[in-house]
Amino acid sequence: MAALPRSVLVTGSNRGIGLELVRQLAASPQPPQHIFATCRDPDGPRGKALRALSAQHPSIRLVQLDTVDLPSIRRAVQVVESCLEGQGLNLLINNAGIGSHATLQSVDSQEMLAAFATNVVGPLQVAKEFLPLLEKAAKGAQKTGLSCSRAAIVNVSSKVGSIGLCLGVLEAPMYPYRASKAAQNMVTRCLAAELRDKGILCTAIHPGWVKTDMGTEQAPMTVERSVQGILAVLGSLSQETSGAFLDWEGNSLPW
Amino acid sequence: MAALPRSVLVTGSNRGIGLELVRQLAASPQPPQHIFATCRDPDGPRGKALRALSAQHPSIRLVQLDTVDLPSIRRAVQVVESCLEGQGLNLLINNAGIGSHATLQSVDSQEMLAAFATNVVGPLQVAKEFLPLLEKAAKGAQKTGLSCSRAAIVNVSSKVGSIGLCLGVLEAPMYPYRASKAAQNMVTRCLAAELRDKGILCTAIHPGWVKTDMGTEQAPMTVERSVQGILAVLGSLSQETSGAFLDWEGNSLPW
Repeated sequence: MAALPRSVLVTGSNRGIGLELVRQLAASPQPPQHIFATCRDPDGPRGKALRALSAQHPSIRLVQLDTVDLPSIRRAVQVVESCLEGQGLNLLINNAGIGSHATLQSVDSQEMLAAFATNVVGPLQVAKEFLPLLEKAAKGAQKTGLSCSRAAIVNVSSKVGSIGLCLGVLEAPMYPYRASKAAQNMVTRCLAAELRDKGILCTAIHPGWVKTDMGTEQAPMTVERSVQGILAVLGSLSQETSGAFLDWEGNSLPW
Repeated sequence: MAALPRSVLVTGSNRGIGLELVRQLAASPQPPQHIFATCRDPDGPRGKALRALSAQHPSIRLVQLDTVDLPSIRRAVQVVESCLEGQGLNLLINNAGIGSHATLQSVDSQEMLAAFATNVVGPLQVAKEFLPLLEKAAKGAQKTGLSCSRAAIVNVSSKVGSIGLCLGVLEAPMYPYRASKAAQNMVTRCLAAELRDKGILCTAIHPGWVKTDMGTEQAPMTVERSVQGILAVLGSLSQETSGAFLDWEGNSLPW
């Protein structure tokens, strides 16, 4: 990532792409001063790898944040605000999400609504609650224009959420996941339009099909490679790519 | 509509576009043999106009159907199946939906999830439960190819659900409505891909901004004009436009 932001928050950072984002940010030559690594249960067994990582890097601060629980989001905002000591938050990466392989035959309303809650409503609520800190970063910045080092919301999306591409529906229907990612892309576009004049960038990123718990071992790409790409793309974002849908190599994807 | 289907079902038919669809279908020179006009409470005060209409047209059959209540959908399938006496259902029009004018400031998870439940999960569940009757119509048809007179699912969508256009976000944020319509468009595309080989067409239609309870009096177009256009477009649908997103004049819209 070209110019690293001073402060970054990553949701769902206890595993997969979220964990690797935190790892690479912390290990960069000039790491952000504050890396807020959030997940639902940082103290539980699922937070083990993240705790081990944070023990090596003083810049990493573990914060409890369940994206579908508004009081939890609000507590996280307070923790982050207190750590930032009057500064704003530069970069919010909405990475937490759930998969779903439901077919037309197996899909039910519960699985659909769970996908919408975690993959759309969660990121929107997190963005909304952290907005005052993002606005503070945008206002306090030495620079104009839009960038991830000034103030930005990056939503981790997916190519299978592209309505235009509509990739491999017969092989992998995934109705809840696809519908939720299309809806999340709409939220990204709306936020980009609404927050542009406040100096806040908002972009959707497809991380590629990655070897993680969600992506499975079948995936062709390592999480290290994906995150290297994502961080390079984040460093390149500007006014022109706010409201865009890009893959980990910076290629534009159709909605 | 060029060649009218033998049987049509319209959800949310007690007012607005749904009521006018039923009215124009019933009043056409050669009306469908069966017009299933469904709504949540056909016997209540909100069903008054629909009851008055059905009293004039023996082809209209009122059926209770709440699209967010699976047992209600399943009861409606039984009623429709019994009326069709061994024939299939040709055309399902998923018209029922709810609006939402929530802004980023006012939006909450309850309003987002309500929009997803009614505008995405409902139409998907209705399509899924009526699928055996649609498949029966597709198989029993004298014709090949895809058309609304053979077997079709038409989802009433909205131009403000176009992620690519992202129209007027600053003037009318409508986060829940926009996100739900984008998600519904994804479902339309997935269904079109999945049901093509079964002889079932699936298309999303933007009815225009129409003077209805949802569209308000500010809207530039009468509901009569919109429905005339929609029915003409439905009559023109084929393999080429299954999986498309069209407006009431047949123009293609970006996802």
